[in-house]
Amino acid sequence: MAVSQKTRSNFLSGSAIRQMFDEGIRLKALHGAEKVADMSLGNPEFDPPQAFTEAFRAVALEPGRHGYMPNAGYPHVRQKVASHLQKLGYLPAVGPEHIVMTTGAAGALHVVLKTILEPGERVVVPRPYFIEYRFYIDTHDGRLHLVDVHPDFELDVDRVADAIDASTRAVIVTSPNNPTGKVYRQETLTDLASLLEERSARYGKPIFLISDEPYREILFTDAPYRSPASFYRNSFMCYSWSKSFSVAGERIGYLAVNPQLQTDDWPLLLGSLSMCNRFLGYVNAPAFMQRVIGASLDAPAVIDHYRAKRDLLCDTLTRAGYAFTPPEGSFYVFPKCPEPERTFIDRAREALLLVVPGSAFGSEGYFRISFACPTETVALACTKLADLMR
Amino acid sequence: MAVSQKTRSNFLSGSAIRQMFDEGIRLKALHGAEKVADMSLGNPEFDPPQAFTEAFRAVALEPGRHGYMPNAGYPHVRQKVASHLQKLGYLPAVGPEHIVMTTGAAGALHVVLKTILEPGERVVVPRPYFIEYRFYIDTHDGRLHLVDVHPDFELDVDRVADAIDASTRAVIVTSPNNPTGKVYRQETLTDLASLLEERSARYGKPIFLISDEPYREILFTDAPYRSPASFYRNSFMCYSWSKSFSVAGERIGYLAVNPQLQTDDWPLLLGSLSMCNRFLGYVNAPAFMQRVIGASLDAPAVIDHYRAKRDLLCDTLTRAGYAFTPPEGSFYVFPKCPEPERTFIDRAREALLLVVPGSAFGSEGYFRISFACPTETVALACTKLADLMR
Repeated sequence: MAVSQKTRSNFLSGSAIRQMFDEGIRLKALHGAEKVADMSLGNPEFDPPQAFTEAFRAVALEPGRHGYMPNAGYPHVRQKVASHLQKLGYLPAVGPEHIVMTTGAAGALHVVLKTILEPGERVVVPRPYFIEYRFYIDTHDGRLHLVDVHPDFELDVDRVADAIDASTRAVIVTSPNNPTGKVYRQETLTDLASLLEERSARYGKPIFLISDEPYREILFTDAPYRSPASFYRNSFMCYSWSKSFSVAGERIGYLAVNPQLQTDDWPLLLGSLSMCNRFLGYVNAPAFMQRVIGASLDAPAVIDHYRAKRDLLCDTLTRAGYAFTPPEGSFYVFPKCPEPERTFIDRAREALLLVVPGSAFGSEGYFRISFACPTETVALACTKLADLMR
Repeated sequence: MAVSQKTRSNFLSGSAIRQMFDEGIRLKALHGAEKVADMSLGNPEFDPPQAFTEAFRAVALEPGRHGYMPNAGYPHVRQKVASHLQKLGYLPAVGPEHIVMTTGAAGALHVVLKTILEPGERVVVPRPYFIEYRFYIDTHDGRLHLVDVHPDFELDVDRVADAIDASTRAVIVTSPNNPTGKVYRQETLTDLASLLEERSARYGKPIFLISDEPYREILFTDAPYRSPASFYRNSFMCYSWSKSFSVAGERIGYLAVNPQLQTDDWPLLLGSLSMCNRFLGYVNAPAFMQRVIGASLDAPAVIDHYRAKRDLLCDTLTRAGYAFTPPEGSFYVFPKCPEPERTFIDRAREALLLVVPGSAFGSEGYFRISFACPTETVALACTKLADLMR
């Protein structure tokens, strides 16, 4: 066999989503793209902010070089990211030395996990969850440990407490959440921080909080965003402009280390993060995109359109009688299936509505609707969602 | 400790090169950049081909989207890469389905290794070698097995034969080589192919050849380039435009699967390669760079200037009495140190000449000179190299 056993098994277990993806292409070819409501993908294809597009064009005309720079990124871009985070209050006292420019948030997560994980160490993740975490953790020989959240998708700190043992190295949180749209409450994050402080002391080693926050600008509540990473000193923030600027294919993001993190050797930690960026083959975040971001990162994200789409979907789901918790952020809704998951997903597909089964996020019996799509597609999906409940 | 034991150990063992790098910055600040001959880095900062620069600017003005595309890359770019490889005769019968666009050649190597390696499997690498291979292989739980080359740096197929056992999964070759500049002879590659065919049959599984060839355009011989991957069916080609187009920081390359590769499940193999591109956090090669390459990949590489630099260096080394084998490709020379390595590297540094010790490539007693630098720097280095032998 050309493919290793583990990769083969991952490929086969992941085939449900891929088959649906292929089915989507087939259905669009068969019935016409305008008849199919594809709500399966988290791939915003909207225009980026105007300041980004202008920077993109201006930087492309500069005579600049395309060579390697330090693995952590261009110093002037790291400085801008640090200033930006300070200005927003997302990570107090952060400096350019705490920033590593990365190949999206996925690159940031890989760099952190490779840097910190001993073989076999446990990484706690609330479920439902972005299933790629499983493969990221596995690549670095960690062990994924899932804990259920509350019925309203709020983080269950008691369950996290039960899951933390002597082998635990980190907890990953995603707020706003994919797939649930939950934004964790400040009291919850305070409780989580207390727990992690207490357990770090008990086990004599820092237990890290890894905050994956690519959706943080897409909020439907009035409270300003506060990063989970700012509640607890032993934390890493992973960010990407994929969602906020609609540039997922360009692979640009960063990793920020909390300046309060407990370590007796900062040069070792920061040097190791840069080194792992290199060892993992990213080497550095794409040079051109770093320069574009350096010239446009203060641009406000173009996200206003999500609120109307979210409201339309929530109204429809409510009126049709679906059980769901309205999302507080991100561009997903995660309702309960009104019948067995397999049956519902199949019926939806027959009605030319493509959604992702909850089992793809570790929570069978739900489905994820992405509204990162044009308004007409959302409207079409609403009609179909209503019809499916008749 | 915040950093895992393995990462800490890698960081400390890799600190010699980093210290030299820092020393270079310090020396340039102290004595003036024009006094220091930094020949330590393989980072070409020359102008890319004009067609590339024109495509770069033209594509930046297009209204194109920046979203995800299939993990293997844009179909039209994969088609162009396949046509390009066919036209050059580098990989006969290759089609777009055999191409995965990657985050440089490093991304291509990681994707292949993750796809094929079972835990503990042996990967054979000729020494001296690009030391990052050690960390790539280790990330995917393989075991690096080094074999010495001939004194003139030609691949020693007998030693490769001795190294292949039942646990062996792959052999990595780099031709033109980093750090030696060797281009493997066709007879050697034919012998290697016969060996790998015989051993694949003996062990009842394909033993793969992974050909890492970012230097293939930089040649000082008259024979046209032939890819090692074209000599043997069970092969993967890893390529990057970093060196040929001087765009190392932009992270764009590809992986090509030999269409003759033995597998009873092509969809599994190709699907797994795409999936691993995603799992490893690359997701897809940077979108904009894919489009730029799609519009400029037939541009001839700007590499003519390397020949004069190589000739000047070789003349100097010969006249000064260094023992070395002239490079047939790449932009490196790998002479023997005329005294113990540590002593020579220190004396060179005192003379403001920065080169990389052979031990950083697994071969103590040598040093690597990179001539990917301006002509004046090469001339300055020549003066210093001559002085060091007086």
